Amino acid sequence: MKKFVNDPQNVVTEEIQGLVNLYPNSLRSIDETVVIRADSPVNGKVVLVSGGGSGHEPMHSGYVGKGMLDAAVAGAVFTAPTPDKILAAINSASSGKGVLLVVTNYAGDVMNFKLAEQLASGVDQVEHVIVNDDVAIKARENRRGVAGTILVHKIAGAKAESGASLDEVKKLGERVISNVRSMGVALSSCTNPTVGKPIFTLGENEMEIGIGVHGEAGVERRELQSADRVVDLLYRRVSEDLGLRKGEEVFVLVNGMGGTPLMELLVAARKVSELLSNDGIRKFRGMVGNFVTSLEMAGFSLSLLRVDEEMKGLLLAPQNTPAFPNLV
Amino acid sequence: MKKFVNDPQNVVTEEIQGLVNLYPNSLRSIDETVVIRADSPVNGKVVLVSGGGSGHEPMHSGYVGKGMLDAAVAGAVFTAPTPDKILAAINSASSGKGVLLVVTNYAGDVMNFKLAEQLASGVDQVEHVIVNDDVAIKARENRRGVAGTILVHKIAGAKAESGASLDEVKKLGERVISNVRSMGVALSSCTNPTVGKPIFTLGENEMEIGIGVHGEAGVERRELQSADRVVDLLYRRVSEDLGLRKGEEVFVLVNGMGGTPLMELLVAARKVSELLSNDGIRKFRGMVGNFVTSLEMAGFSLSLLRVDEEMKGLLLAPQNTPAFPNLV
Repeated sequence: MKKFVNDPQNVVTEEIQGLVNLYPNSLRSIDETVVIRADSPVNGKVVLVSGGGSGHEPMHSGYVGKGMLDAAVAGAVFTAPTPDKILAAINSASSGKGVLLVVTNYAGDVMNFKLAEQLASGVDQVEHVIVNDDVAIKARENRRGVAGTILVHKIAGAKAESGASLDEVKKLGERVISNVRSMGVALSSCTNPTVGKPIFTLGENEMEIGIGVHGEAGVERRELQSADRVVDLLYRRVSEDLGLRKGEEVFVLVNGMGGTPLMELLVAARKVSELLSNDGIRKFRGMVGNFVTSLEMAGFSLSLLRVDEEMKGLLLAPQNTPAFPNLV
Repeated sequence: MKKFVNDPQNVVTEEIQGLVNLYPNSLRSIDETVVIRADSPVNGKVVLVSGGGSGHEPMHSGYVGKGMLDAAVAGAVFTAPTPDKILAAINSASSGKGVLLVVTNYAGDVMNFKLAEQLASGVDQVEHVIVNDDVAIKARENRRGVAGTILVHKIAGAKAESGASLDEVKKLGERVISNVRSMGVALSSCTNPTVGKPIFTLGENEMEIGIGVHGEAGVERRELQSADRVVDLLYRRVSEDLGLRKGEEVFVLVNGMGGTPLMELLVAARKVSELLSNDGIRKFRGMVGNFVTSLEMAGFSLSLLRVDEEMKGLLLAPQNTPAFPNLV
């Protein structure tokens, strides 16, 4: 294993220290693995709390700040955070106007966030939404929450910032989840620093389609193809699952898994624009970069979000987080 | 070579299409390899033009937009752009109030930008600054322009946006260059897609110190050490070269070379904050991520910029580019 680390057991606490020390004006940490807005609790505002295993940076801690999350809870690498830490995040961030938990659809995360929700019942009103945007898996209830998660953070976060009620924020979060789909592909595996060995291996001319962000192997292994053919494959699955029709409008997210150069992500983005144009789908802004990663995995995912007027306004609303980009 | 590309010969034009198609509201391209602000020429404003070899994305095209560059010229991978393309950028962006070329200190870039400057003498008043922040090389005149370049883009760009004269913008650019130093380290090489083979190789337990962003081998090869020791080594070289003294204030840039997980960059950032604190140096904001890369190289660089009040204000000034982050 070739990594810039100290003791691999300390990697999560050290990276969180690194983050909050770099952004002391906007972030602070509690309990070593929870990052919250420095100005928490923000009075009169519905609070958004999310989290999950580490290794997907900048998700979730890089999306804490005005207009997005109030708190992010980091588990060990690729491991759900424990209920006590989630509860600590709720306790610190809540201002009594309600808490929405944004949970990715993995057994451990769902179990622990729901348990924390119960434990917090005396603190504030707590609700949750479950993100399951990964179309690589057929049955909707088993689908993983992948890159689309940060669009829930952005849109529901902006809604909460605008003073909306818990019910309104939750309903909007559910609407985003209903309208976003993602699918990924990898050229290489990644190595959990506490394990020291790659999660899987791929041949020199192989790619893994339908990869998950926790380093799970994908649903199909194929011979490596041109960037355009790979994008075409992901686009077909995503747009068909979403039931996109001519004239509709989408937000585009081309997400690097951590080890793929931006050059290749931009080449992929070019083909996405072309395919949308061919299908008569309008493109409302987009973003390209490493937003929801699997450590140093080479690969990328394509997410499409069918947008409505409210979502469009909230996507463009100001945010003040280290990792969410300008939507220019 | 395992990459998401189509014909490797088209990678630069395809990625630029990908970028401008994703951001049609703020960017457009001319001559296939030049990205300019969609609203160029901006009347009454000194114009900033930069560029260099491709493979360092998001530099330079990701920093085109209000408050930073007016135009970016992309050469082939790790190859200077040609004078005619630089001239085309100047011609398209200039509004007659003067043009500042921000040039990184590589022989080919310096030669071609200076030639374009001469060719443009009838178009507008054109001046240049040369960025040479890489302390891995001893003689200042031979030092490469690396990650510190984007701090010149940001600060001089904000100054130009404020309505300053060409002389004022150039002088400030030179002041930033005088006060910024960088040094990098790599754990792996990278592969130019048009070449197909890695530029150099490193053993399983080796790191290369003083790496350049064009994939040049570094100045010293050592056994891999802990993240904290690697950061300590870079920090000493950078801060001593800058002559940092107790009580001074710096902006911190921890820059990934493309293939290193953000987790490791944050672990590195933690140590930078600790070392600054130990030395009594105040930290004025910072940024961590992949900003000036070498394709998929695993590695990172540390840049420190000694800031004054004017620079601080300009660092925080609004910008509207795809790749420069919020400084929260």
